[in-house]
Amino acid sequence: MGSAGPGRPCETPVGEGIRRTRRTPVAAAVPVWSVDPRTGKQRERVADEATAADVDAAVRAAHQTLPALADRGTRVAFLRAAAKRLEADGERIVATADAESALGGTRLTGELARTTGQLRAFADEVEDGGYLDVIIDHADPALTPPRPDLRRYKLPLGVVAVYAASNFPLAFSVPGGDTASALAAGCPVVVKAHPDHPATSALCAAALRAGAADAGLPEDVVSVVHGFDAGVELVRHPLVSAAGFTGSVKGGRALFDAAAARPRPIPFHGELGSLNPVVVTREAVAERAEQIGEGLGGSMTLGTGQFCVKPGLVLVPEGADGDRMLDKLAGTLRAATPGHLLDDRMRDAFLAGVTERSALRQVAAPVAAGVGEDARTVRPGLFTIRAAELGEEHALLLEECFGPVSVVVRYADEAEIESVLDAMDGSLTATVHLSSAEAAGDADAAALLTRLTKIAGRVLVNGWPTGVAVAPAQHHGGPYPATTSTSTSVGATAIERWLRPVAFQDTPEALLPEELRDDNPLGLPRRVDGVRE
Amino acid sequence: MGSAGPGRPCETPVGEGIRRTRRTPVAAAVPVWSVDPRTGKQRERVADEATAADVDAAVRAAHQTLPALADRGTRVAFLRAAAKRLEADGERIVATADAESALGGTRLTGELARTTGQLRAFADEVEDGGYLDVIIDHADPALTPPRPDLRRYKLPLGVVAVYAASNFPLAFSVPGGDTASALAAGCPVVVKAHPDHPATSALCAAALRAGAADAGLPEDVVSVVHGFDAGVELVRHPLVSAAGFTGSVKGGRALFDAAAARPRPIPFHGELGSLNPVVVTREAVAERAEQIGEGLGGSMTLGTGQFCVKPGLVLVPEGADGDRMLDKLAGTLRAATPGHLLDDRMRDAFLAGVTERSALRQVAAPVAAGVGEDARTVRPGLFTIRAAELGEEHALLLEECFGPVSVVVRYADEAEIESVLDAMDGSLTATVHLSSAEAAGDADAAALLTRLTKIAGRVLVNGWPTGVAVAPAQHHGGPYPATTSTSTSVGATAIERWLRPVAFQDTPEALLPEELRDDNPLGLPRRVDGVRE
Repeated sequence: MGSAGPGRPCETPVGEGIRRTRRTPVAAAVPVWSVDPRTGKQRERVADEATAADVDAAVRAAHQTLPALADRGTRVAFLRAAAKRLEADGERIVATADAESALGGTRLTGELARTTGQLRAFADEVEDGGYLDVIIDHADPALTPPRPDLRRYKLPLGVVAVYAASNFPLAFSVPGGDTASALAAGCPVVVKAHPDHPATSALCAAALRAGAADAGLPEDVVSVVHGFDAGVELVRHPLVSAAGFTGSVKGGRALFDAAAARPRPIPFHGELGSLNPVVVTREAVAERAEQIGEGLGGSMTLGTGQFCVKPGLVLVPEGADGDRMLDKLAGTLRAATPGHLLDDRMRDAFLAGVTERSALRQVAAPVAAGVGEDARTVRPGLFTIRAAELGEEHALLLEECFGPVSVVVRYADEAEIESVLDAMDGSLTATVHLSSAEAAGDADAAALLTRLTKIAGRVLVNGWPTGVAVAPAQHHGGPYPATTSTSTSVGATAIERWLRPVAFQDTPEALLPEELRDDNPLGLPRRVDGVRE
Repeated sequence: MGSAGPGRPCETPVGEGIRRTRRTPVAAAVPVWSVDPRTGKQRERVADEATAADVDAAVRAAHQTLPALADRGTRVAFLRAAAKRLEADGERIVATADAESALGGTRLTGELARTTGQLRAFADEVEDGGYLDVIIDHADPALTPPRPDLRRYKLPLGVVAVYAASNFPLAFSVPGGDTASALAAGCPVVVKAHPDHPATSALCAAALRAGAADAGLPEDVVSVVHGFDAGVELVRHPLVSAAGFTGSVKGGRALFDAAAARPRPIPFHGELGSLNPVVVTREAVAERAEQIGEGLGGSMTLGTGQFCVKPGLVLVPEGADGDRMLDKLAGTLRAATPGHLLDDRMRDAFLAGVTERSALRQVAAPVAAGVGEDARTVRPGLFTIRAAELGEEHALLLEECFGPVSVVVRYADEAEIESVLDAMDGSLTATVHLSSAEAAGDADAAALLTRLTKIAGRVLVNGWPTGVAVAPAQHHGGPYPATTSTSTSVGATAIERWLRPVAFQDTPEALLPEELRDDNPLGLPRRVDGVRE
């Protein structure tokens, strides 16, 4: 990591790694700069963008580590050592991430704890071994035709490409859930770093690689490449077996398409975009209008609205109770401190998105989002529209607008709720706010929850979707474009994405992998002749 | 199902449903004929090809049945009733399938038993409920941040499109594994029938629909459409949520591409093509050359070589023992009765494939495959080549040739085995024949098995891959082009393809689905706070 040297001038806009880099005919090195979003100034030159040859070398080096990663015990030790290494360098990592992302030390300290906790949680899952999904059926010669002996478990797919997210420099980036789950599965990882935090990426990669060495593994089980072109090379590389992505619909879809168009297509688990609808019932708003308004204001401005689970569309009943809720929400937003977005490109996109939505007919903006007093910051805002007035011209209101703004749709009755939900794409989450009486078992409320499961992967009652707990039962995924597959990127089952089953038929005990032997030397949970052990 | 009426003359070639049908500007009905491959004659006019409007109507009707299919108990009753209905009409179904496929009554009677057994096996899985993958994590306020209550299970994806296979008119067609597993998951099914057995498809659809009515379900939980264009319409239909396919690499890849190119891509679980390599070790052939040669001859000619798991490439050591094995194999093939292929198109493709391979340099044909005495039949055959002579010009030998022919590659040493395996694409199966001593625990044999798991989804020792047992531990899938996903189309876990997880957060007990309630009223296997119950 050299300090700032020759290269692009300081006013170079951020996000070069996302826009297509123009290569000069001579393959001059393209520098990768760490940029401070609070000032727009370059902090340091971290690396060069990876060339096709660099990507090839990284993938081949990763592929070589597959046999070393095969041992479960070593992987457990590695994941725990990586967590320790991240903690050991935690102060520097948090400070660097803050300098590159402006997300703040408190949030990033929490994010680091979440990230190390996630690595340890996957270590626990590897130790548990349930993810191997062992099924054993002994031979049954009495059947017609006689059934052979069959034993199935799961093997790692191979090298995994991970595309880091802008908005979580740690938990959804180099040491994040995709990387942790892939390594847990036994898959080496090449991360395409996000251009918003190259220095953080380098520090985290160093920590993970040191953790690998601590566990006696080659460091190349994880490596990082920079640059847009490198990301495209990566998903096309013949030795890459699967990919995980967190980012925009446009970028994610382009990579999904590239993964599907390969001579041998590979699974592409992408988290692209999500509106995260919230339905506030008439009874709920009658019961606690202010509390809901304040909660919503907090959730939609958390991290300056840069969460993939930000509540982006909120259905609120027409009438005085709903008005009270919106008054409280508006007050909360007006009182909120303007914040920095992750980079200038996102700030421009946010301001353009706000302008475009403001121009729509029938849309009001009780609190106008826009530029803060410090011109590098943005103020949160709010749009409102009546459900009855929502038409095809308002399609944009049903798309995610990254940043601290949400759309409130006022409904007159349940039929209007239904028609708004019908018009939506898939989301990561859907939330309902119910009254105490409804929460106690109202049939309409139960039906609404069932309705919401059709458009989202996580359904919440009387809470806010921001904050994605790392827990075995977590599901962080949803119908397209929330995710490009049916899988999750958070929680224990995220490991399933990087595995494929293999069955052994009539294989002598002495030649079977330990995982499939009758005496179960590894003590794995399994299903033997239909019975769970 | 009308009897033969006006339409195409009797000499119309079969397989019109696969070749792109030329539509006249006026949408004249395109008749679908049942054809006898033993004579090439049309048997009866079964239906018309489905128009875009027909496909739309079928999908919409299927979609309407989703709520009715939601009840697990009803689905169990339905799957068992469907099995009974198929058995009740068994004689007619087998006779019709034989008349359309020439596969023979014995084989088809077995296939029907396998098919009804499979429906019942999935009913058992639904009853068991393990496929719902219930995980419950209670709230933990002591954690930082406090963990909410999270409960996860799986929901059906929606309408599933199933593309029937030519070579299994029952077990991989209308009432086959894709249909059975999708219905078990709670997904309505629209089957694109294979043009080789439209009359069988109609009978089976009627049985399944009668089974649905028996269980109190709408019949439209399953329906059938005919025609190539209908198949393309189907995978593009906005209400189709996933697809299962068994067939050729070309057809499967085209549909996979269409599924990935949709505005909202859907999972496409396709089984496309497989070489199914067999490695015979030097010690094994020394021990039982004749037995292996005879076994191979039986396996590769079973069903006139029309199995997706036919052993298509066999590695045999050079030397006298290997020669003995090949002599026995050649004798077995010469003694085999010529058989009918499923249709004229396949017969043409088989003969062309044999001719093309015969023309390759260094390739010998100790037994020449070709036309049988009855010119509508084909004789099995065998190609041989030395591993050292295999070059890029022989790429065709590493591709599946559908029909009773296999390629034997003679190797000098282990390095040659490795280089041939390295050149192969993914397969459904890989088989090794070992000596008794090797099978007792030889390290090289174990390493060879591990090597084979990299290219196949099922690894067999001292057996033959034909015959895919229906059992929970079965895995019928493999690296591309064997399958387009990491899933299986046979065995209990085939149901996973048609489900997506949903998590409920902080949802009051009274509003939770029964599957996720604390008191576990349905008695489901589950993982609660990390502990399996």
